[in-house]
Amino acid sequence: MNDTKRIMVRGAPIASGRHPLVCTPLVGGSVDDILREVAAVLPKRPDVVEWRADYFGQIADREAVIDTALRIRDAVGGIPVIFTCRSAREGGQRIALAASGVAELLGDVCGARAANLVDFELANAAGDVERVRDAARQNGVTLILSHHDFAATPGAEALLDTFRAAERAGGDVAKVAVMPRTLEDVLTLLSATLAARAALSIPLLSMSMGPLGSITRMVGWAFGSTLTFAVGQSSSAPGQIPIEDLRTALAIAQRAFGAER
Amino acid sequence: MNDTKRIMVRGAPIASGRHPLVCTPLVGGSVDDILREVAAVLPKRPDVVEWRADYFGQIADREAVIDTALRIRDAVGGIPVIFTCRSAREGGQRIALAASGVAELLGDVCGARAANLVDFELANAAGDVERVRDAARQNGVTLILSHHDFAATPGAEALLDTFRAAERAGGDVAKVAVMPRTLEDVLTLLSATLAARAALSIPLLSMSMGPLGSITRMVGWAFGSTLTFAVGQSSSAPGQIPIEDLRTALAIAQRAFGAER
Repeated sequence: MNDTKRIMVRGAPIASGRHPLVCTPLVGGSVDDILREVAAVLPKRPDVVEWRADYFGQIADREAVIDTALRIRDAVGGIPVIFTCRSAREGGQRIALAASGVAELLGDVCGARAANLVDFELANAAGDVERVRDAARQNGVTLILSHHDFAATPGAEALLDTFRAAERAGGDVAKVAVMPRTLEDVLTLLSATLAARAALSIPLLSMSMGPLGSITRMVGWAFGSTLTFAVGQSSSAPGQIPIEDLRTALAIAQRAFGAER
Repeated sequence: MNDTKRIMVRGAPIASGRHPLVCTPLVGGSVDDILREVAAVLPKRPDVVEWRADYFGQIADREAVIDTALRIRDAVGGIPVIFTCRSAREGGQRIALAASGVAELLGDVCGARAANLVDFELANAAGDVERVRDAARQNGVTLILSHHDFAATPGAEALLDTFRAAERAGGDVAKVAVMPRTLEDVLTLLSATLAARAALSIPLLSMSMGPLGSITRMVGWAFGSTLTFAVGQSSSAPGQIPIEDLRTALAIAQRAFGAER
């Protein structure tokens, strides 16, 4: 839709404003694995890649993380990279760093301009969120404030509150990913996304996870979700669809819906 | 979903229970046009075809209609045919027959076993609905009782009431097609479909029309809609998608969702 806000990086919309953006995750455990993953994923032309650094074996080694982030940035050419160290509480791998350590690391990634976007969970301590937000702003990095619920889908009002909270906390982008127990939950997520698109002044992305929610990865763009994750080589969350399939389904749905409405 | 009821013809589910069924409309004005349309559509392997007889120039000529229906039945091989003479009030062409004349014609089509299914609008006089229902039952023809709203989408409760009314009036299948004004209306139709699947003991089909509703033609099956219309050669309602595109999108969505859930 024309009123869907686009994700900006350094003042310009990613991929000239393409909607939705297709993002593939990188989940390798070592530098070599990750660079092989980049090489496998690049021909599939994702609009964005997300480095899920919580999968990285050396996540506690600041230098190794920054160095690897810079190598990814070089390897992907101009494709924007999201740096994410997902907490175990919200579906990430268990790592040696505490949340404050992650906030510090994200600050360092911003300082080194080793990623174009960083993702941090809204549920973190306000001080940590502020620290990441300030580092992002100072370095022209786009901040995604995210919320994941792998157990259930809250009601539409609660979901809208979460989107609003991400904006209030200074996010440049609000992300909400929830697990449906029923198909009604899938509709609730889409409905809340629609409401959030109208209510927020920042772009947002959302998905209903798992097989039940997989259709939201294909149609969520119509409701205001500006980025959808797809499997390049390996998935990072349940319900992700191979990028080729997702692109095909998006093209068909957009032709029927009327492109860019 | 396993609990989605299938449309039966003479005691057996159409296309061995494939879900959803893909139906292409025939909208030719003459016998020759219609048979050319059948020839163009058959290679695309629809599961069902619907003859929209309200487009037929000789609709007021009982013999011509029965003869043409039989020729269509022969031309499509074993593919089930829905005979529909849509009223102008519900989106059909303006024709010389009154509703009672259409009821009589449907009775004759059933008597001649010139179609496997007939569609009649629920909004018709109760006596006409009973007449068509009795003729269908006596001849082993499957009765679709339908409701179309080209102006708006009623609330979820009203939609569920319409599905229930189709069952109460003796339909073998309940069909509801409504026009969305907003994307929230599209979600309302899907939500009502989900509720109707749980509430009804007959199979149902539903769609949200127009470009805005087009995604329901691709994902409605997950919510309980057992048949989706696609363009073979010409469309019969706004928002219909080419059959090749629809099949591709369905395959991708079903792979992600888990086939036959």
